[in-house]
Amino acid sequence: MTNSSVCDDKTQSGVVFAVDLGGTHLRAALIDDKGRIRVRFKQNTPQTGRQSDIVKAIAEAARSCMQGDESTTSYVSVAVPGTVNVKKGLVIKAPNLPCLEGFGLAAAVESELKLPAILENDANAAAVGEVWQGAARGCHAVVCVTLGTGVGGGIILNDKLWRGADGSAAEIGHMAVDPFTGVACPCGSRGCLEVYASATAIVRMTRELSPQYLNSPLRKTDDLTAQKIHSAGLEGDELALEVFRRMGNYLGIGLATLINLLNPQMIVIGGGVVNGWNLFEKQMRQQVMERAFPIPAEHVRIVPGECGDDAGLLGAARLALDK
Amino acid sequence: MTNSSVCDDKTQSGVVFAVDLGGTHLRAALIDDKGRIRVRFKQNTPQTGRQSDIVKAIAEAARSCMQGDESTTSYVSVAVPGTVNVKKGLVIKAPNLPCLEGFGLAAAVESELKLPAILENDANAAAVGEVWQGAARGCHAVVCVTLGTGVGGGIILNDKLWRGADGSAAEIGHMAVDPFTGVACPCGSRGCLEVYASATAIVRMTRELSPQYLNSPLRKTDDLTAQKIHSAGLEGDELALEVFRRMGNYLGIGLATLINLLNPQMIVIGGGVVNGWNLFEKQMRQQVMERAFPIPAEHVRIVPGECGDDAGLLGAARLALDK
Repeated sequence: MTNSSVCDDKTQSGVVFAVDLGGTHLRAALIDDKGRIRVRFKQNTPQTGRQSDIVKAIAEAARSCMQGDESTTSYVSVAVPGTVNVKKGLVIKAPNLPCLEGFGLAAAVESELKLPAILENDANAAAVGEVWQGAARGCHAVVCVTLGTGVGGGIILNDKLWRGADGSAAEIGHMAVDPFTGVACPCGSRGCLEVYASATAIVRMTRELSPQYLNSPLRKTDDLTAQKIHSAGLEGDELALEVFRRMGNYLGIGLATLINLLNPQMIVIGGGVVNGWNLFEKQMRQQVMERAFPIPAEHVRIVPGECGDDAGLLGAARLALDK
Repeated sequence: MTNSSVCDDKTQSGVVFAVDLGGTHLRAALIDDKGRIRVRFKQNTPQTGRQSDIVKAIAEAARSCMQGDESTTSYVSVAVPGTVNVKKGLVIKAPNLPCLEGFGLAAAVESELKLPAILENDANAAAVGEVWQGAARGCHAVVCVTLGTGVGGGIILNDKLWRGADGSAAEIGHMAVDPFTGVACPCGSRGCLEVYASATAIVRMTRELSPQYLNSPLRKTDDLTAQKIHSAGLEGDELALEVFRRMGNYLGIGLATLINLLNPQMIVIGGGVVNGWNLFEKQMRQQVMERAFPIPAEHVRIVPGECGDDAGLLGAARLALDK
């Protein structure tokens, strides 16, 4: 699958080419310094396990977006699903694209496109996107939690991403929320937030609880997805509602720890699972109010993201525009 | 109890008066810009519940330290056991000195001593002290955990304290480490790190486990303290050893979450309970290695503090010297 769409207004001042490189899809766009997406592009991420194929796919996306006019584009910025060394433009860890581990993706893209290139972790980029163009505009201390296939995060303090000593900070999905009796996490630990609040977790919890909900049509649904469970919840399916309530409780426990540790102005919840907001909000807020310190818990605004799937692209663009 | 001691070298360049105002003791010192403690003072913190008595005690400590020569002292800096509004010099929350809540302690001290005064949370001050003169010298991203009567913390990122939107960040003692089956915490939550890693927790866990250790002399010890339990552990008492092992496990779970969230260069463990380091280090490190992401877990140095009881005084001094 590939597709690209073009926005009407072609005035391009300070335009950058942003890529959100997912394990499944490669999304890309030309974005200007007002945060307007000028051209979009989407295709499947190459699954050949070859670094060069990913670089080629990025180059193809770039050429499709730029349509022969490279002169107005000043930078390439790639959001990567993993840990990156931002200074060196190196992918350190990428569980969903392991062929990139240790690879100097920025240099390879630069050499292919003859434009300076930077990398950023995708959840970090999404946080920057939400502060620039989304729910957290005007906020200086923001935690962004991305509930997708996994759970990622970005921490912005004093208007800047906190990346940590090795670029691996903000692994919000791997805070322990049930360390003793919790479910084993692919990261090697147990009871991480990710195993209760990701799309994958929503599906697993639905399967686990289904023997207790004999009347739920979800018991017989093929190819169960978080989206299907969400839809069932909206129709009042008790199994789905219970799964989202549990998810909200675990998320609230994690957020309470975040609030006690970082005392942010705002927590933005993004990623696909946030569509279930109305099904998990109550339990999430209840845990926060019960567990976090009263003043920061009352002051922090916990809101769904506003940039949707574009958060990572927008943030990647902003980081390049700041160069 | 009051006492003061004087250091030999009386050359005073850029000297500040620092106070570590505890729930039990008020410790104070004149400290120079090299971090040398020139004069010390210690007395019990007034327990009258009157703000004015605390201000008077601070003034008394100042006069005792300055010995009639106020000319060389440029600032007063008070480390407070609670949440403070640093900008306004206001105490927001102080569970161990509730009479100070809502009080403009900085202005009151300024008016009494005719010197500019600042406030800081005591655990934040201790973190600054360890970075300036202790274990974390030269580090830019440091988490300091203070294991005392409670568990406090300070977070230093890019060489600066992260205080949060309301000045209540770094409440490391109130990260959930056993949120479901854990012990109720005085903060209102359940399973906080504080109820497993503070001096208070060491005593409680010893009492809880003592029925299983019929031969332990701790079963008959009056006025059980964390210090006595530590001493028993050093002599091989199995009850004490088990308590410190448990404490190490919980501490390690909390540190793993801190590492995944903040990816610090160093974690400094301070406070009185750190004396038991050899009794809890193994379990603490084991949990960190099992639970935190490998790269940040391998890179982070987890060390005991080097400033001991002076961490808060030194940090308070440093913050004033930076003014």
